[in-house]
Amino acid sequence: MDATQESQTTAPLQGTAHGYIKSKDKELLQNRLRRIEGQVRGVQRMVDEEAYCVDVLTQIASVVSALEKVGTILLKDHVDHCVRESIEKGEDADEKIEELTAAVERFLRV
Amino acid sequence: MDATQESQTTAPLQGTAHGYIKSKDKELLQNRLRRIEGQVRGVQRMVDEEAYCVDVLTQIASVVSALEKVGTILLKDHVDHCVRESIEKGEDADEKIEELTAAVERFLRV
Amino acid sequence: MDATQESQTTAPLQGTAHGYIKSKDKELLQNRLRRIEGQVRGVQRMVDEEAYCVDVLTQIASVVSALEKVGTILLKDHVDHCVRESIEKGEDADEKIEELTAAVERFLRV
Amino acid sequence: MDATQESQTTAPLQGTAHGYIKSKDKELLQNRLRRIEGQVRGVQRMVDEEAYCVDVLTQIASVVSALEKVGTILLKDHVDHCVRESIEKGEDADEKIEELTAAVERFLRV
Repeated sequence: MDATQESQTTAPLQGTAHGYIKSKDKELLQNRLRRIEGQVRGVQRMVDEEAYCVDVLTQIASVVSALEKVGTILLKDHVDHCVRESIEKGEDADEKIEELTAAVERFLRV
Repeated sequence: MDATQESQTTAPLQGTAHGYIKSKDKELLQNRLRRIEGQVRGVQRMVDEEAYCVDVLTQIASVVSALEKVGTILLKDHVDHCVRESIEKGEDADEKIEELTAAVERFLRV
Repeated sequence: MDATQESQTTAPLQGTAHGYIKSKDKELLQNRLRRIEGQVRGVQRMVDEEAYCVDVLTQIASVVSALEKVGTILLKDHVDHCVRESIEKGEDADEKIEELTAAVERFLRV
Repeated sequence: MDATQESQTTAPLQGTAHGYIKSKDKELLQNRLRRIEGQVRGVQRMVDEEAYCVDVLTQIASVVSALEKVGTILLKDHVDHCVRESIEKGEDADEKIEELTAAVERFLRV
């Protein structure tokens, strides 16, 4: 594992991936995330050039919506895969459901 | 202006910048926005490696919070500068206040 | 069914209740909802008496949090009961999961 | 001042009201708040009758939106009146602007 990672997330080794993301969603998610990255750079430029503040705020609100949309796609894949599987197998279902609710709470910040 | 811009924002010419962002805030905002850009790339990697879904969701929730924090810093600078100035000069104050409320509504999505 | 209902919801006949709310949660939810109702009346009084605007806004933000907390308790009971049951029985699981994600999206307004 | 108040807000004496709410907005706000109170009672009934969970969640999301709409109407009146006045008089403008941003942050929970 190299030390140059930007986030603290430990990358799983190839083969340990959870495999819960439907492949059509994976491409969709990556497209959306690249567009979001471009929008964040757009906001940096706007701040740099001191674009009109209200326009910057509008752009930020649009990035937030785009991120939350990505979040709900992931959430659906998660329920469709991990939560469903744990319930079907009768393994850790309570824990998975607890985790799911906690994830939604973090989004709502309640 | 070259054609490679990622966002549709027209960059103002040097000298037409609104100047409303306090210089200490400008650096603070750019630091935060660069960290946010890194976090978005971190999310891309997590999706790529199919990191555990709940961890990806937590990371996305954290990017959303960071963006909203940037939004409120900009909002404050905007009120401190544009709104205050328009009220002091008695010019376009109603319009500025309308615009401000609309920006907050876009954030709250009401 | 009498015509004086305040909401458009059709009350289910006794005995057709879905039964998904854990009884200990039901009491907890009703206590929270009564407190929320009292808070809303408190806001009415504040508006009536023209209490300081920022205090009214703070109170409203607190009611919003309390309602979202109620929402996540219901969400958990729903997953624990309806979603889990439909997966266990292999009946309508896709539909239930779709519905769940749609409910979360309505909360996030994405 | 009697002790039976539901909220901790101290009611201002007649004549000390801040007067910042435009009278046409005051009626509008009270109508909205009464409708919100009715919606909260509707949610209580739905919980009592164990209405379908997703319908209860939808209703709660709608109450949240209605409350946030009330919040933005108040916010606009506040800026239009208190913030504008303090800037025009050159009194406490910094404090008012700080307070305003803090109120927005409480709504966004950042």
